[in-house]
Amino acid sequence: MPTPLRSRTRGPKVVAFGGGHGLSASLNALRHLTRDLTAVVTVADNGGSSGRLRAEMPILPPGDLRMALSALCEDSEWGVTWRDVVQHRFTSEGDMDGHSLGNFLIVALWQLLDDPIAALDYVGELLGTSGRVLPMALEPLDIEALVSFPGEGTRTIRGQADVAATTGHVETLRVIPPEPAIAREVLDSIDEAEWLVIGPGSWYTSVLPHVKIPELREAIEHTKARKILTMNLAAGRSETVGLTGVDLLNIVCDAAPGLAFDALIADPSAERDGGKALTSAAHERGIDVLMRMVSTGDGTPTHDPLRLATAYRDVFNGVFTHPRKD
Amino acid sequence: MPTPLRSRTRGPKVVAFGGGHGLSASLNALRHLTRDLTAVVTVADNGGSSGRLRAEMPILPPGDLRMALSALCEDSEWGVTWRDVVQHRFTSEGDMDGHSLGNFLIVALWQLLDDPIAALDYVGELLGTSGRVLPMALEPLDIEALVSFPGEGTRTIRGQADVAATTGHVETLRVIPPEPAIAREVLDSIDEAEWLVIGPGSWYTSVLPHVKIPELREAIEHTKARKILTMNLAAGRSETVGLTGVDLLNIVCDAAPGLAFDALIADPSAERDGGKALTSAAHERGIDVLMRMVSTGDGTPTHDPLRLATAYRDVFNGVFTHPRKD
Repeated sequence: MPTPLRSRTRGPKVVAFGGGHGLSASLNALRHLTRDLTAVVTVADNGGSSGRLRAEMPILPPGDLRMALSALCEDSEWGVTWRDVVQHRFTSEGDMDGHSLGNFLIVALWQLLDDPIAALDYVGELLGTSGRVLPMALEPLDIEALVSFPGEGTRTIRGQADVAATTGHVETLRVIPPEPAIAREVLDSIDEAEWLVIGPGSWYTSVLPHVKIPELREAIEHTKARKILTMNLAAGRSETVGLTGVDLLNIVCDAAPGLAFDALIADPSAERDGGKALTSAAHERGIDVLMRMVSTGDGTPTHDPLRLATAYRDVFNGVFTHPRKD
Repeated sequence: MPTPLRSRTRGPKVVAFGGGHGLSASLNALRHLTRDLTAVVTVADNGGSSGRLRAEMPILPPGDLRMALSALCEDSEWGVTWRDVVQHRFTSEGDMDGHSLGNFLIVALWQLLDDPIAALDYVGELLGTSGRVLPMALEPLDIEALVSFPGEGTRTIRGQADVAATTGHVETLRVIPPEPAIAREVLDSIDEAEWLVIGPGSWYTSVLPHVKIPELREAIEHTKARKILTMNLAAGRSETVGLTGVDLLNIVCDAAPGLAFDALIADPSAERDGGKALTSAAHERGIDVLMRMVSTGDGTPTHDPLRLATAYRDVFNGVFTHPRKD
């Protein structure tokens, strides 16, 4: 019997937040559990193909949206071929080098339909996605961080690409503009959700921006949906060098004091102490913990879609390795 | 009742040859009459978006193929939206300016599938095309013409874009390479066709190349399909400046002495004498003539899809304004 690669039933209403590979990991897992899935995706990328397109035309950066759509593609020859087309990057000695076909496609639909969400729905229909992909804001965002370097003082770094790659310590982070327009569809999906999933992903540039924007943060705080925080497998690398899982938990909770997480998923191998400190910190905040292997186990910090799906399913069913002590 | 915009029945097996706007005019008419339609499209373009892509990557120029696919799109919101996406051109101050999304899409599919015809079939499926679009050759072509300028002697002009725009007199034309690889699917479609349609189009750069390639010319000469030559509405402009319809007929017949046309469609307003000389010349070659208004009548040299469709239907049914005198 072939592995069932996506949910055959509608499943719970889930909204996943993030961008890049982290969000793709979440979506690749969640699509096994539900067809009622909405991805709310960062639009702050200023690097690579998206950055070049954004510099050339007044558009949202399409790259993270493209990756999320691709993660949700239909498991058919049609869906997988179009996903590969959408993910295709040109290699040349000229202007096209490194550009992604899917970025072009999304931009063309935006320019043609003049409706960023209808355009993404069209790509979704092409790929047969189960679920919907929405931009977190209706205008392109920039990320600016005040970063300290030991012995060198602090420096302001602007642009998602450079912030994500910094090896300094991020002191403060701001999103520009601070109060961008948010699509009605995003707020409604948060309001109607049964579960919100935040993380994994580049903590400062893909996870934190969602709770930095007041209108989004308030929607996340006020919804009746239960909230899951999925930790990274590589805490302490690049932008979060030197930080532990506890630090990352504190960063997101401090940025949104009104946001009460219900559950935390982490892989013990990603924590130096096997997850003890993180479990305690979560319990102190009233968060149930599922501490279990969710990586591929091949040594790379990569989530295994089926292991992560199983973890989400268990959380949906109230199964935890470390339920909180009330 | 809405106008039926395409054939509801399968219809006769038709192969249409050409490129650019001329071929689109043919396809826009023929799609009212049959769903068993194959377009065999020039791959010699070296101008615009196609030319730039071709200079950057080792590919067939996609532009004429894109236009043919777009002409055959399904008449549904889906088909028409994707046609508009495929035909979309970017406007920017940078590298993307003037590039066509559809060209990118076709190139991405070529690189991904490594099968030029399967890739075009995928775009056809996306657009819901009735009919199939094939490249006339499996390698990119160049066109080189020896052109005479009154009082200035002759000059060799290379490249479809420059040949098509010349105001000199084309003395000889050659296709480079002279014997390119031709897809089996092209030869089979010609062999199995009931009707072949040649023209309208840029005479030297979109019409003549097909009969200049020995393997194609022989297939066209040997098939049992009946052959229709559709004349241009603007004989005597740009590359064919100073030439009459009779000249154009002679040019294509001289290039392929073994090719016996069965029917000729022309608009009397495009001929200085209302088409008398062209009718006589056709009759001398044993060709039946349908001399009738097939233009939009708005003063531009543009075929009206329904008038041209009616003309093709009448020819398919053996109805002519000027049947040949045997």
